[in-house]
Amino acid sequence: MNKEVFKLPIRVYYEDTDAGGIVYYANYLKFAERARTEFLRWGGFEQAEDLSSEERYAFIVRKAEVEYLKPSKLDDLIEVSCEIEEIKGAGIVCKQDVICNGEVRVKIKVTAVYISLAKMRPMRVPEEMVKAFIGG
Amino acid sequence: MNKEVFKLPIRVYYEDTDAGGIVYYANYLKFAERARTEFLRWGGFEQAEDLSSEERYAFIVRKAEVEYLKPSKLDDLIEVSCEIEEIKGAGIVCKQDVICNGEVRVKIKVTAVYISLAKMRPMRVPEEMVKAFIGG
Amino acid sequence: MNKEVFKLPIRVYYEDTDAGGIVYYANYLKFAERARTEFLRWGGFEQAEDLSSEERYAFIVRKAEVEYLKPSKLDDLIEVSCEIEEIKGAGIVCKQDVICNGEVRVKIKVTAVYISLAKMRPMRVPEEMVKAFIGG
Amino acid sequence: MNKEVFKLPIRVYYEDTDAGGIVYYANYLKFAERARTEFLRWGGFEQAEDLSSEERYAFIVRKAEVEYLKPSKLDDLIEVSCEIEEIKGAGIVCKQDVICNGEVRVKIKVTAVYISLAKMRPMRVPEEMVKAFIGG
Repeated sequence: MNKEVFKLPIRVYYEDTDAGGIVYYANYLKFAERARTEFLRWGGFEQAEDLSSEERYAFIVRKAEVEYLKPSKLDDLIEVSCEIEEIKGAGIVCKQDVICNGEVRVKIKVTAVYISLAKMRPMRVPEEMVKAFIGG
Repeated sequence: MNKEVFKLPIRVYYEDTDAGGIVYYANYLKFAERARTEFLRWGGFEQAEDLSSEERYAFIVRKAEVEYLKPSKLDDLIEVSCEIEEIKGAGIVCKQDVICNGEVRVKIKVTAVYISLAKMRPMRVPEEMVKAFIGG
Repeated sequence: MNKEVFKLPIRVYYEDTDAGGIVYYANYLKFAERARTEFLRWGGFEQAEDLSSEERYAFIVRKAEVEYLKPSKLDDLIEVSCEIEEIKGAGIVCKQDVICNGEVRVKIKVTAVYISLAKMRPMRVPEEMVKAFIGG
Repeated sequence: MNKEVFKLPIRVYYEDTDAGGIVYYANYLKFAERARTEFLRWGGFEQAEDLSSEERYAFIVRKAEVEYLKPSKLDDLIEVSCEIEEIKGAGIVCKQDVICNGEVRVKIKVTAVYISLAKMRPMRVPEEMVKAFIGG
């Protein structure tokens, strides 16, 4: 795949805002997951297939660090990026920015683990995924 | 069980509101389901047990009718009632009110069906549940 | 505007699903509102402008009727339509379908009222909106 | 106030879970905010009053760090703690744990800033709040 950073455009709707008039802080983690999902799909991977397999594979988030720099408002059209910093064993580290008008509003770092939900056990990230996203 | 109407107190948090400064309309269906869940628990039924059985039993909503009479705001302490109007075969009809300071703010009518998620097929509502909630 | 029915494509993400493995019933009202918002935008109306005006204009839902015909799952690509059935005074009635692979999964009817949040009072739906969506 | 750690009991409902069968990762930030809100209320502070003042005071989260140690499931009864680590100028740092059966499942650290939403400017945390929660 090319080296351009993946970005998903997301519109801010009423459901995303709160009585403070800005996007509710937890919802950026929803946006971040939409971007990770579309990033995986862009690489050819469908999470629903993984989930409906016998082992019920899924990425589970182990750690999320979120820095809120500027608020977003109703109707804002934001972009959420997704870059993989590292894949190692069962673990994957993603760096994600929420951007609007060229300005970074939220910085997110997510550490996830690929697991079998059936066994609740970490599994090595599939080789095709490593190849697709890291190369080698 | 006694004939008093079941009511669950629910506090309105930031997550429930939107940029209009009031509770987002979809969230009343969340409140209603919390009340139905606690109503079932009050009658001795745990949905998690049903869901983790081999058949994966669950109530699925077939129809929801919601009338929004007055808005709710941040920090409001509301009550959500749950009364069963009818149980018939796999179907159950609940009447639910969202009340604050003795005033009905939202009226909800929910028709649900008891199904096996494993087979995606309607199942007769368990006899113990009918007995507990309807008597007979 | 042309007479084609407006449809917004929406992807089902993890956030939309529940432990039953299907889209949580309240979330269809979120999808419906996204479609109504994009329908208004398609007609040239931005809700954020209305909300940031002195009167703080917004549509408030008075009634929602939802019929759930078939469940949706993770990664499904659904479409949510929006058609105006009626505009009269402050009121507007929308008919919305959730469609996947040509099949209607959820049918929604929403009655909303255009209000001034500052005065908490219904206001006549703006003439330009009536013209844009109904004609005349 | 006494030195016992504040804990809010929270029940896990269908709305909180996802198709993986566990609580969706973003929702712990909702739980954490419920606990912070009740912690403030326990100290005598109502956020709705702050928000409806002319300045529209509110705490805005600047940073959230979340460590997910164990998943939670439907019907789990969890407790969410809230301890203030530091109050300094406009900033406040909270340490929060999600606990079930004596086991810490999620560790959360939230840095928030007290701001005037009207001016979008940080404001010193009110003296009464510092006194109530830190003493001195």
